[in-house]
This record gives sequence, C-alpha cells and structure tokens, in this order.
Amino acid sequence: MANQNHYDVLIIGAGPIGMACAIEAQKANLSYLIIEKGALVNSLFNYPVFMTFFSTSQKLEIGGVPFVTINPKPNRNEAVEYYRRVAEKFELKINLFESVIKVIKNENNFEISTLKRNYTANNVVVATGFYDVPLLMKVPGEDLPKVTHYYKDPHLYAFQNVLVVGANNSGVDAALETYRKGANVTMVIRSGELGPNVKYWVRPDIENRIKEGVITAYFNSEVIEINENEVIIKTPEGIKTIKNDFVIAMTGYQPDFSMLRKFGIDLPDSLCPAYSEETMETNVKGLYLAGVVCGGLDTHKLFIENSRVHAEMIVRNIST
Amino acid sequence: MANQNHYDVLIIGAGPIGMACAIEAQKANLSYLIIEKGALVNSLFNYPVFMTFFSTSQKLEIGGVPFVTINPKPNRNEAVEYYRRVAEKFELKINLFESVIKVIKNENNFEISTLKRNYTANNVVVATGFYDVPLLMKVPGEDLPKVTHYYKDPHLYAFQNVLVVGANNSGVDAALETYRKGANVTMVIRSGELGPNVKYWVRPDIENRIKEGVITAYFNSEVIEINENEVIIKTPEGIKTIKNDFVIAMTGYQPDFSMLRKFGIDLPDSLCPAYSEETMETNVKGLYLAGVVCGGLDTHKLFIENSRVHAEMIVRNIST
Amino acid sequence: MANQNHYDVLIIGAGPIGMACAIEAQKANLSYLIIEKGALVNSLFNYPVFMTFFSTSQKLEIGGVPFVTINPKPNRNEAVEYYRRVAEKFELKINLFESVIKVIKNENNFEISTLKRNYTANNVVVATGFYDVPLLMKVPGEDLPKVTHYYKDPHLYAFQNVLVVGANNSGVDAALETYRKGANVTMVIRSGELGPNVKYWVRPDIENRIKEGVITAYFNSEVIEINENEVIIKTPEGIKTIKNDFVIAMTGYQPDFSMLRKFGIDLPDSLCPAYSEETMETNVKGLYLAGVVCGGLDTHKLFIENSRVHAEMIVRNIST
Amino acid sequence: MANQNHYDVLIIGAGPIGMACAIEAQKANLSYLIIEKGALVNSLFNYPVFMTFFSTSQKLEIGGVPFVTINPKPNRNEAVEYYRRVAEKFELKINLFESVIKVIKNENNFEISTLKRNYTANNVVVATGFYDVPLLMKVPGEDLPKVTHYYKDPHLYAFQNVLVVGANNSGVDAALETYRKGANVTMVIRSGELGPNVKYWVRPDIENRIKEGVITAYFNSEVIEINENEVIIKTPEGIKTIKNDFVIAMTGYQPDFSMLRKFGIDLPDSLCPAYSEETMETNVKGLYLAGVVCGGLDTHKLFIENSRVHAEMIVRNIST
Repeated sequence: MANQNHYDVLIIGAGPIGMACAIEAQKANLSYLIIEKGALVNSLFNYPVFMTFFSTSQKLEIGGVPFVTINPKPNRNEAVEYYRRVAEKFELKINLFESVIKVIKNENNFEISTLKRNYTANNVVVATGFYDVPLLMKVPGEDLPKVTHYYKDPHLYAFQNVLVVGANNSGVDAALETYRKGANVTMVIRSGELGPNVKYWVRPDIENRIKEGVITAYFNSEVIEINENEVIIKTPEGIKTIKNDFVIAMTGYQPDFSMLRKFGIDLPDSLCPAYSEETMETNVKGLYLAGVVCGGLDTHKLFIENSRVHAEMIVRNIST
Repeated sequence: MANQNHYDVLIIGAGPIGMACAIEAQKANLSYLIIEKGALVNSLFNYPVFMTFFSTSQKLEIGGVPFVTINPKPNRNEAVEYYRRVAEKFELKINLFESVIKVIKNENNFEISTLKRNYTANNVVVATGFYDVPLLMKVPGEDLPKVTHYYKDPHLYAFQNVLVVGANNSGVDAALETYRKGANVTMVIRSGELGPNVKYWVRPDIENRIKEGVITAYFNSEVIEINENEVIIKTPEGIKTIKNDFVIAMTGYQPDFSMLRKFGIDLPDSLCPAYSEETMETNVKGLYLAGVVCGGLDTHKLFIENSRVHAEMIVRNIST
Repeated sequence: MANQNHYDVLIIGAGPIGMACAIEAQKANLSYLIIEKGALVNSLFNYPVFMTFFSTSQKLEIGGVPFVTINPKPNRNEAVEYYRRVAEKFELKINLFESVIKVIKNENNFEISTLKRNYTANNVVVATGFYDVPLLMKVPGEDLPKVTHYYKDPHLYAFQNVLVVGANNSGVDAALETYRKGANVTMVIRSGELGPNVKYWVRPDIENRIKEGVITAYFNSEVIEINENEVIIKTPEGIKTIKNDFVIAMTGYQPDFSMLRKFGIDLPDSLCPAYSEETMETNVKGLYLAGVVCGGLDTHKLFIENSRVHAEMIVRNIST
Repeated sequence: MANQNHYDVLIIGAGPIGMACAIEAQKANLSYLIIEKGALVNSLFNYPVFMTFFSTSQKLEIGGVPFVTINPKPNRNEAVEYYRRVAEKFELKINLFESVIKVIKNENNFEISTLKRNYTANNVVVATGFYDVPLLMKVPGEDLPKVTHYYKDPHLYAFQNVLVVGANNSGVDAALETYRKGANVTMVIRSGELGPNVKYWVRPDIENRIKEGVITAYFNSEVIEINENEVIIKTPEGIKTIKNDFVIAMTGYQPDFSMLRKFGIDLPDSLCPAYSEETMETNVKGLYLAGVVCGGLDTHKLFIENSRVHAEMIVRNIST
C-alpha cells in the first residue's frame, strides 16, 4: 500500500521559487508537496504595503504565466495576487501555516516532521528565502516595541520622530515614505554612502532630501542605545542623543543558518552553504537548495529573476 | 510552392473571441492569421476609461491565462493590457489596422481582400463584434459634433448640460459619471423603466439619484431634435425644450449586417444570421461566426464569458 | 505665568470627529490639544486594506477641505491620507501614541493624566469612537491566535478554511474577499438574515454566493467552541463540527464604557451615555461627547457624515 | 443699470493658473469670469492617460486646497479631478467651450468677443498656456492621419512600427510606454543627446533601452518625409528609410503668438512677450499675462509650481 504522506519531492517554502519548483515537479509527473510555515508567498505578503519592485513584471513570472499589470513596475499587492493566481491555475499542493521542525536523512529517504504531521520524501528542496531572520544591531533597547525590523505602512509614523537604520533600498524607501507622511526622519548609515543597489529612480530623491536637510543622515555612524524617548548614536562628530518615537531597523536579513545546519548542510565560515552550481544539490544527497537561501549572507546576489531557473535544474536532476 | 498568403483559417477581428480562435488554431497546428481593422481589442480600447466589467476577471480569461487583478471586478485598462499580454505570450499572428473589404467563396477556398493585401484561406471566422455600427436615433442634429455614440471620459462634461439617451448599462454609467463630475444631467429613456440588465450594484445608485431629482429622467420619451444649445424631446407630458451642451447617445450598437450579407451569410428578417449552434458554421461552408456577431440585434445575449467557447467548437469542426 | 499644559479644550481621540473639533476650536481661537493613544485616525488605519466606504468622498470631508479621489467611492488608503493632509494643512496640535488614563473634574477645570504627562483644561471632548473594544463571543477558544476581531488582508487566508462570524458589512466583506482569494468560507449568523445595513452593491453578491453554495451560511446559528483545527457551531439542525484554520469574528465593537464611567458620565441601562442633543455636553459640565461614542451600543447610528456637525455644536457652546 | 456682461477681470483660459487668478479675484471681491475654449483644465485633460507629474502633489496645489494622493507623484487622472474639485469648492464662474475671437482695448475698458457672446471688462488676464499650437516639423506627410502631435494611450501602438520624434519628457515617455506595449520603436532626435530636463527617474530607463538596442535612437537626425508605410530620415550616416505605421511627433508646443499680437501685445524677435515681472501687466494697460504663456518659446521655464504666484501679483496690482 502506498504511503499517503510520501512524496518524490518535498519543498520547504511557498515563495516564488518554491512554487516554481512545484510547477516543474508537476510537469515532470513527480509527486510533490510544498510546506510553508506562513501564508502563501509569506515574505512578499509581509513587504511594505506601498512597495514597488525594481523589476518589470516579466522578470517576476514563473510557470510561463504572464504577470499582467498596468503599472510600469509591479507593486507588492499585485505580486502577492499574481502568485496566488499561479498557485490556483496549477492547483499546486501546498500546506500553509505548517512549520517544519526536523528533516532527517535516512539511507533511502528523508523523514520530515512538522508541528502537525510526519512525511517521507525521496528529495527535499529548501526554498526558504531569507526574510525570517533579521540581522540584529545588538544594542540595548532593540527589543522595545517601538523598534521594528519589518517596516510596513508609512502612515503609522505620521508626525513622529523616526530613526531609520540602513541605507539600502528598504531603508531608503522607509525614510522617504515616512518623510512624505510628515515624519521627522533621521537616518543612521554604517558606511560612508548610500547602498550601491539603491534603485536608480529613488537615489536622486533621497540624495536631494539629505542635501536639502529635510532628512538628516549620519554616515559612518551607528546606533548604540535605544530608550523610550531617545536614541543614542555614535557619529564621526561624537555621540549624539536624538529625540525618538520609532526605530525602523532596515539592517538586512539572513537565511536561517541553524536550520540549514540541522539538515546537515555544510556551512563554511563564509556561511555560503555547500551546493553544486549545476544541480543545486547540497552535500546531502537528495537535499537541494533553491532561491536566495543559496546566497548565504550575500542576500543581494539572488532574487526571483535569476533564481527561478533553479527549479528546472533541480527537477531535471531529480528526474534523471 | 506554398502560397505565403494562404492560411488554414483567416480570422476577422482581434477582439477576445477572435484571439481565442487564434489560440485554438495554434494549438491545433493550423496556420492562421487575424486581420483587424483597428488596434488590438479595438472595442475594449474604445470603452469608457473608467469602465468596470460586470464579470470577475476569471470570466474574461482566454487561452487558460490567469487575468490577475487586485480589484473585485476588472476595469477597461486592465482588460486591454490582459489581452495584449495574451497576444504576446502566444505570439499570435495579427495584422492590425487593416480593413477587410471583400471575402469571396470559391470552390476550394476563400479569397480575402483588404485595403493592403490579398489572401486565400480554407476557412474564415468572422469575429467582428458589434461595436462599430451605432444604432442611430435618426433625428435632426444627430450629426452635430456635440453628439457622440461613444462616451469616453466624464471630465469632458464637467459643469455642462448633458443629455444621456438610453438607460442600459452604458447610458446609466454615463449619466452617473458625468453627474459626479458636476454635469447637469438629463436622461431620455424610450421605455418606462431602466434597462433590465443594469448592473445590480449600479441600479440603486441611479434610482436614488433620479428619486432625489439630481438627475432628471424622462421615461417613455424620445429625442426629436438636437440644436446647438438645446434638445427637443417628446415626453408623455408633451414636447419639452431643454438647454443642452452635449448629447451622449447610448442607444446601442449592431453587428455590421451589410458585411455579413456581402459574405453571403443568410440574414432573415430577425437579422439573426444563419449558423449551426454545434459548429458555428454559417450557410456558407467554411465560413464561421464567433462571439457577439452571432446574436444579430440581440447584443445582450452573448459576451466574452459565454462565447469564448465558440473558438473550440470552430477549430474542432475545422480539424475534423 | 501661563501654564504650558493648560488648554481651553482638550480633545481625546484623533479620528475624523476629534480632528473636526480641533479645526473648529482653532477657528474660534481656542487653545486646544488632541491626545490620541494610537496613530492619526487610528481606527481607519486599522481598517481592512481593501475597504471601500459606503459614502462618496464628499460625505467624509471635514474643515471644508475637498477629498479628491478618482474612484466613485473612496477607499481606506485614500481616507487615511486625506485626514493626514487635513491635519497638515491646519497644522493641528496632536499628541499621538499617548494614552489618557485619568480625567478628573475639579471645581474650575479638568485634570487629565496620560501615560506621559499631566494636563489641565477648561473643557474636554471625548471623541474616542468605538473600534477599540470588540464585542466578544465569550466562547472557549476565542483567545486562540487564529481568532481575530480585526480583519485586515484577505491574502492571509488564501486556500484556508475560514469561519466568518457576523453578517454586517464587515463580516460580508471579509467573507467575499477571502472567498475570492481561494478560502473555503463558512459564515455563522446569529439572526435569520443578512444585516440590514449591508451595502446595496454588496448584498446581491453575497446572496448569490450563498445561493450557489460556494459560501456556506448558517443562519440562526452561533459558535459554541473554537479548537485548533475545528469550530463547533449550534445551528437549527443541531450541533456541527467544521474543519477550521481561521476565525474572523466580525461581531461588532462598542465604545469604551468603563472609560466613560470613570470620567463620571451617566450610563443608564441602555448604555446610551447622557448628553444634550443641542450642545453635546454630558452631565459633567464642560465634558462633551462627539461622534460615534455618543451612540452607545448602537454603533450603526452615527458615522462621520452625520456626526461631524458635533464639532461646531461643541465649540459654539464652549465659545458662548 | 449694471451691465450683466461686465467684469472687473476677465480671465482667458481655465487651466490651473487661470483658476488661481479667479480664486484670487474672488478673495479680493472682484467680479470675474473665466472663458475657456475647451473643457476645464483642457491641456491636462489631453495629456497622455498614464502621465505622471514630475512634481509632488503639493507643488500643483492652488487656492490652499490640499491635493490628496496616495501615490508619490500624482498622475494625470488625479490632477484633472483635483482641479475640478477646486473649481467646485470655490464655485468658480467659468464658461467652458467658448472661444475668444477678439479683445479690443478701449479708453476705459476692454471689449471681448467670443463665438457665443460679447463682454466688457476693466482688466483681462491671458492664461492660455502653450499646448494648443504644436511646433511642426514642416515635412511632407506631416498631415497624414498616422502622425500625431498629441500622444495619448500607448495601447494604440501595440505591435506597430512607431517613430517617436523628440527626446524631451514627452518623447521619452511615448517611446518607453509604446515599447512596453510591444511596439517596435525608433527615435529621431535633432540634437546629440536626450533632453536636459528628462525626469531623473526616467533617464536611466531610456538610456539603457537605447544601449540594449531594443529602442533604436538616431541622434543628430531629423525626419525629412513621411509616407503611408515608411518614414525617411536624415542621419549622420546618411538617408535612411524605415518601415513605419505611426509617427508620434513630440516636437513641442508654443503659445498662440498670433493671438497675443492681435491683443496688441509687443512680441520682439525672441517671441518673449513684453510684460512687467512685478505686476505681469503687458504693454497694454490692464492686460495681464499669467502662466506659461509668459515664457514665449521657452516653454520649459514656467510651470504650475513657479507661476501660480502670478495670480496674486496680478490681483494685487488690479486691486490697488
């Protein structure tokens, strides 16, 4: 009798790349299941509500399904709905709100345990992205409710004293959006300049706001303490204490390295997990990585556009 | 030597149904070409800019391509872009801005002439819709520039005296939209009540505006003359002369019957063209009808949702 | 020496009506301050992201400022920004994220304490709305994380088993929106029919979905227990156990009656607070009510459109 | 007896600046009338449907009315509706669709004739903008229906061969938008580079498309002839003939200089009309210029943001 909970491929993560893997598995007639600890495309779902993608919609497409939008660049709301419609079209098999807690490699298969059930599978694909574990500042006060690593809606900050930490796209977007809602915005930037990947159509906007002085930016600076009504920052001109109501810490995210280690994947000092660039297979036979999780700490290297191809590579390798 | 301008199927009209026919022909490995006298989905392109469809987006889909929208009901802008992306995805062969002027049935094929070229084809599909020929009121002044049968953008009428003729969806939309832009709106309605197909979520809105008196509606009435600054209407209470700047005549449209006759299609008194309900083939062997053009004068009977199936019926018949 | 923290009028609540009071106070040259425990227009900010108002934008306007929108009915995002721009235009004095904990009536003034400061005022206006205290079902499991009284974004529920409790506008919107995102929706409705105030353009939609059976509705029914994977409901046909992932309890809200009592306002058994309909003054001299808080349990009686007039009534009374 | 058709100020043009003049006149208790040959804000109304402004909405505001938008930069649809609501709020007196044909300066007043009526006024403000008279290429074929100086909706050009003339914002927008709708786009640019005022967030986009070769750009080039299916252009590499379906000639516009001359305004060789920079009064006493019409051929110097101040200057001068 066939095991109902056994699959050719078990995919962890229902983001765009996990979904692309499922579509390829389906096309190859492999049995598969996606397990996702949150909602469908959970990271995108948690993106800022007014977020606009860097890419045109074509570059976000999976499964050959056109992503129709009347905007030059798609936004978060549209992308979330696009992937939902793709899941619906292919009738993808997905268990949502189910956290994987264990993946054990046996001689002939994998045993996967979640908070709800147990599964077995011949292959496992880890497509868990990097948005779940924020890079912390590790300063006193970081755990106050007024501090967030997940910026969502600028109106919350209207007319407040806001400190934005970081000057990559997420930090710059948060600074500009809250400034436009009447917040009094200060930026603290570790390096001497804005992030090199800041969207070209946003860069002059933030540069001009800093130049005009309507947004204050401290370069080569860092937060050293957060209090109820103030933040204390270290700048090249010395320690400064600034009135503060909210801290938006856009300091980046990282893959869940402890999970990768638990699965038996080699993680060298660089934290770049071991895998084959031809097949996406890790040092654990039958265990694959897909999407941004492959990049280790360098979370700017891989995104939907250049990692959706992982799906075909993995399924090709499994099928042969 | 193969004739470069010969096709298994030549489709006249690049609306949703003509496109659906092309997709089916492509899947069946038939050679085909769409010829369209205007832009892609020309009728939708000419719809009012703020028009919202009655249907959910799923009901407008063709070729199995999801129509992604974050609105409960899609609008004109989204629909136009959806069909364009579908044309792009399937790389449909379409000649735009090319008017068909002649279709001649020979023993073995059809000869089709346009203003630009000549073609031959084994089969011809007429999918020309009904939006090109407005039903005229046939009253003096109907040809004044202030009279339109194609309402587009309500702002044009801001603060003006507007007469809307007709109380189907298009008339009701025009009346409400221009009223909301500050126009002084009068409606002239031939029958004793609003059209039976008025969208359910619009009906109470127009009924309440008429009840409040902010939109004046003359039922059982008709326009008898249009002048530069006035319209003259016949009402149950007698002839009335009304100050007027613009007339929006939403009196309906009809298929191009003279074209159907020229192609040799039988048109009985009812003007409902002769065709088989199983195959969509007309009395002319190899000549098919698809979409709303089949309905004759009853242009409310067929729309995308219930006529996209024509495409499969036609191609199945051609292929066997 | 003037007391910096003394005001002619202290307004509790930065919703539309609290803001309208501030604008009137400003016009009357009264010193005033708004104190708000959350963000500006905090209730609107917490509304469902795709929420559309029942009213045209004109009916939501305060301070004579046009609410410009290109949609027939404004949505939550636009309303939030409208009120923010109004606050900015009038440079309203507002302390956000500051909770009032005590209001004491002295012989000559009021003493107001918040979690941050103390104030005195000659008059106090309570404009706190009703969105902070949900009406509970008082059933086992209501405190599980899968149960919410504040529905926000339908995508969270995509492909999940969702129980919606209540059939007023908020319940009906939640049911339709989550159904359209692929949720398997069941409604539990205490009475024998949908709420009498359901928006006219939404009513046929929900009625048709229930008739088709794509949304299951239990009328004359109630939830009796909520478990991790199930809900147990009492229906006229007996007890039923239903598979369930999420419960959206749209059971209504109520003004914070304990706060009103603490302020000394008489609350008869009807819970309709005592106040003059001419002046909005309560039994406590100098203490006024404005907006929906006046309605007691009947939270459908008052809304922005018909209570923005309270602002003028109160300030007129204070000024004379 | 007062002359019903006599005004303290008669304003020609119902664009944003003409409206600003009317608001100032109203505040100063001057009698006034705006006469406009088209719709309200006729130029904006004719802008491309997807046009986004360079400015934030604040910079487009007149009469102290907030321009609420949830987008970072407002678009054409929103701007048109904003100005309509402003007209409504101030109940501005405007005669639309009425063309001025004559303005005669008498000893004591002006006589103004339109196609509909005659007026007298103590002062006249010309606020007619510059969008009515396109700068022609003066080449054979420019009058073909396939050539436009008023680009509107990119979908019209889907999958067509499009020539865009000019590389200022309007040309660049047209090239990018039609390219994104699948047009095969060629640009002809008189100078050696893109226009200096191209929006900073658009410039890299067009530069990259040209670099990639998906849009072909001929610099230092000009159109010399337009035929039904081709255009002939002169380039540094010689004469080229290009397949062509549509020409979008974004070659700029100019104020109606013949009208200014007819009104008696001095126009030196530079075509920069004579007026005082303090009062906006021309050499004709009582005749004022407002807005972009002041700039002569340099139509990039003045726009809403920096010419709305003209309204106050003019009305101050008239009132004293």
